[in-house]
Amino acid sequence: MFRRLMTFDEAKKVIDEQLKLKPLGAEEISLLEAYNRVLAEDVVATLDIPPFNRSTVDGYAVKAADTFGAEENQPVQLRICGSVSVGEPPKITVNPGEAAEIVTGAPIPEGADAVVMVEDTDRDGDLLRVYRAVTRDENVMKKGADIKKGETALKAGQVLGASEIGVLAALGFAKAKVFKAPVVAVLSTGAEVTEPGKPLPPGKIYDINAYSLSTAVRESGGKPLYLGVIPDDKAALRTALERALASADMVVTSGGVSVGPKDLTPQTVAALGEPGLLVCGIAVKPGKPTTIALVGEKPVFALPGHPASTLLMFHLLVRPVIQLMSGRTAREDRAVKALAATRMFSAKGRRTFVMVKLKHDELKRLVAVPVETGASGAITTLAKADGFVEIPENQQFIDSDEEVTVTLLKSTLLL
Amino acid sequence: MFRRLMTFDEAKKVIDEQLKLKPLGAEEISLLEAYNRVLAEDVVATLDIPPFNRSTVDGYAVKAADTFGAEENQPVQLRICGSVSVGEPPKITVNPGEAAEIVTGAPIPEGADAVVMVEDTDRDGDLLRVYRAVTRDENVMKKGADIKKGETALKAGQVLGASEIGVLAALGFAKAKVFKAPVVAVLSTGAEVTEPGKPLPPGKIYDINAYSLSTAVRESGGKPLYLGVIPDDKAALRTALERALASADMVVTSGGVSVGPKDLTPQTVAALGEPGLLVCGIAVKPGKPTTIALVGEKPVFALPGHPASTLLMFHLLVRPVIQLMSGRTAREDRAVKALAATRMFSAKGRRTFVMVKLKHDELKRLVAVPVETGASGAITTLAKADGFVEIPENQQFIDSDEEVTVTLLKSTLLL
Repeated sequence: MFRRLMTFDEAKKVIDEQLKLKPLGAEEISLLEAYNRVLAEDVVATLDIPPFNRSTVDGYAVKAADTFGAEENQPVQLRICGSVSVGEPPKITVNPGEAAEIVTGAPIPEGADAVVMVEDTDRDGDLLRVYRAVTRDENVMKKGADIKKGETALKAGQVLGASEIGVLAALGFAKAKVFKAPVVAVLSTGAEVTEPGKPLPPGKIYDINAYSLSTAVRESGGKPLYLGVIPDDKAALRTALERALASADMVVTSGGVSVGPKDLTPQTVAALGEPGLLVCGIAVKPGKPTTIALVGEKPVFALPGHPASTLLMFHLLVRPVIQLMSGRTAREDRAVKALAATRMFSAKGRRTFVMVKLKHDELKRLVAVPVETGASGAITTLAKADGFVEIPENQQFIDSDEEVTVTLLKSTLLL
Repeated sequence: MFRRLMTFDEAKKVIDEQLKLKPLGAEEISLLEAYNRVLAEDVVATLDIPPFNRSTVDGYAVKAADTFGAEENQPVQLRICGSVSVGEPPKITVNPGEAAEIVTGAPIPEGADAVVMVEDTDRDGDLLRVYRAVTRDENVMKKGADIKKGETALKAGQVLGASEIGVLAALGFAKAKVFKAPVVAVLSTGAEVTEPGKPLPPGKIYDINAYSLSTAVRESGGKPLYLGVIPDDKAALRTALERALASADMVVTSGGVSVGPKDLTPQTVAALGEPGLLVCGIAVKPGKPTTIALVGEKPVFALPGHPASTLLMFHLLVRPVIQLMSGRTAREDRAVKALAATRMFSAKGRRTFVMVKLKHDELKRLVAVPVETGASGAITTLAKADGFVEIPENQQFIDSDEEVTVTLLKSTLLL
């Protein structure tokens, strides 16, 4: 059976339109666990921050008008009527001609509307000399100046970092309502793969993909459910996939998708339930056998066995899905401009992704050097690559010294 | 007592020289938990990857020389001597004039040195017609081509992402030896602060810093130990600090470090043990009261109570310490060039950090707009800021439209 493969753009469109992606729902978690999670609802301030007028300095709370005209050689004299502590409601009122001792953060007492800094005063028992005039509200942080009661302080969809979590704490919340992180079942197939940590029988290799994909799931904001290597027969694969679908929001497999007689994954995935297979191969290089299905509302991605291809396909197709399911806006990758170090060829009629390493040449120009993929199975390809260059389907090659856009794969990369 | 404050550079030097920072030691953890951890030792390959010569295609293993001269209209005829399965050592030998059926990933059998793709053949029972010549090693991934036995595949200090974890799996490791993540005790002080989640008594505000700093610790690669708000008396603070030192590798406090009568932290920290206080205030704005001590080998950072100042000081001084203790190279912050949107003033004689938001102006130029700090306590400052501009001690201001370097605070920021 011959059938035209879907183009990369067609496959992306199928994902966008048929997977009907939306955040999974919300859960309430401790603020201490909320780092890097996504807020599931707008946060409306239930109180003013600060909740009262506060002094921003150590000094004396006064009526500003009482200090007008005060200068270094012509102080104004006020009577100290008491003091205000931090953390307690003031028990005193400042009347005309009076001042109340106050510390940073303490509430401004009734009657006062400004604070004179201690450095601008001189005290003699109950008598205070003020050497500098203050204006109304000077050295006062007004009630609600930071966040007003009723204001939307944070919006649904914001990713929680140190300052967002600070805002939630300021408003008195010890918990946050965040989108659930999608649970992504990860399994490897293939008669030749053995789980790391076990002895390696002759003719076999260690499984890479279940570990690298689990890590990539975590990196994308999902929770990996590692299912390891599934024995290479149809019944075992079907049982494993059913178990995966029952306990996860999404399934990612690797291996078993090319045309060999033992490549069972597509047929097994197809039989799992409606609507079934959506994408059976994509006109890309690498990653051509990539298969995508939907079982009920749960996406299944069957990626190729080649470790570098599988991680690249994960990055291009699966990561945005996890991000959307966790309430994130699937965000644009970071990219830099560089010059092609050598001519890079495309695969005829297929969107080609060339893994590259960035470096500066002798003229200090940033150049993109293709990473030798050697052959199928090269895990070191990705470890060495900083990103990839995309060659459109209708272009035969990119010439040496031509400017290219390098999409960065490692978020940690610094140039 | 008057004393010249340390400059920012002097304080950094004290941290570098007197804290004697080094990674805390190693622990072995599952590869599935190793994401974003730091490798504690070089990883030397204990086997070749792949461990045997593998076919990279589905087809027939042959002696390349037997196919020389084969062309589309002039096939070479070979006798099929058997087949090789994936995941099993081959039981056959390919003799001159013979070919063995083989699938992608299967070991090349004895005698064969290349693989003809199935598309270039035509089979008739035991007879194989080959329509295209192959060269030696064509469609073969050689033993050790990806990683050679004895080669250093990963180096101590590498941060583990999906591909590094893939390399470890490929070598058969289910665990990784990584540097311990430093446990950082975080506590807040101040009579005015109450823990979020509890009712707010009059005159008090909710604590922000223990939550925002705990998050910042996590973001820096440490494990926060949240100790919450410590009652505002000397004995309670001392007990809390001793407990913190006993159970953590490092302590970060906030509040209680300025000159008010209730600012107990520096004196309490000083009494905890030798060598004691190293830095008592720094000529910076904001963050002047920042205090640093060393108790035994454990650093104690007493940061100011202002939420934006405390997070900025954490970023500048504490984060690099956590990174070094967790085996990371304290890495340069990301920075971008922008134009100052307004004139920015420095505080006389102090290194000044102006929090800014980046935006594009009507001429599409990237401009740095100072974020209104309003007054002490503004948590929204940091939530709004993208980064900061640094003004040296000897410079009075940065002029409007002058080019500035904006150090980015949010790793997630995309421009």
